[in-house]
Amino acid sequence: MQVDVIRLDEKLARFEGHWAPRIIAQMNDYHFKLVKILGEFVWHSHADTDEVFLVIEGRMRIEFRDQSIDLSAGELCVVPRGVEHKPSADAECHVMLVEPADTVNTGDAGGDRTAGQIWI
Amino acid sequence: MQVDVIRLDEKLARFEGHWAPRIIAQMNDYHFKLVKILGEFVWHSHADTDEVFLVIEGRMRIEFRDQSIDLSAGELCVVPRGVEHKPSADAECHVMLVEPADTVNTGDAGGDRTAGQIWI
Repeated sequence: MQVDVIRLDEKLARFEGHWAPRIIAQMNDYHFKLVKILGEFVWHSHADTDEVFLVIEGRMRIEFRDQSIDLSAGELCVVPRGVEHKPSADAECHVMLVEPADTVNTGDAGGDRTAGQIWI
Repeated sequence: MQVDVIRLDEKLARFEGHWAPRIIAQMNDYHFKLVKILGEFVWHSHADTDEVFLVIEGRMRIEFRDQSIDLSAGELCVVPRGVEHKPSADAECHVMLVEPADTVNTGDAGGDRTAGQIWI
């Protein structure tokens, strides 16, 4: 049995590019992922699951149809299942996501920004 | 529909005392908790679930029967289900835990350090 220390900074240094989450840990059937974001993502929702965003560095916005929230480092939110949302960031922002292992980044929207399941 | 911004620092300022996790968010049937730790906890395991420790501030150690790991701010680990572990910290350390909503802090060990389910 080997339990590894997972360093967020070290994992973040391993990849570039935006909106393509990398998996860094699995707890039961949930994945912990890191993603770098910049600009606007697509409107989408996840019918079957909530989703947690925890900002590690920088600032991001999540728009909903009836409100928007700004998140800075050390802040998190839970996007409820089925709720349409559009993440964005004016400058590169580093985020940790927690969600079920089969969650697709674009949810119901699909399209060419759909990312694969990549471990780092 | 109201999505709240959850600030870790602000939540940490709301409580004192050690080894008594406070719940700050729920994602599906999982809880995100904050805990302040100091000194040694009890040896215990969780038969039915993995458990994530993410250090927010300070340093902690987790001893296992066959190894030990040190975690600093920005580092996380996944303690596998059924694996005995004993967390400790030489100075106060602030940690975020992620685990199923019914997880008891002392696992199979029970005893007087078993904490209730307290939201902040």
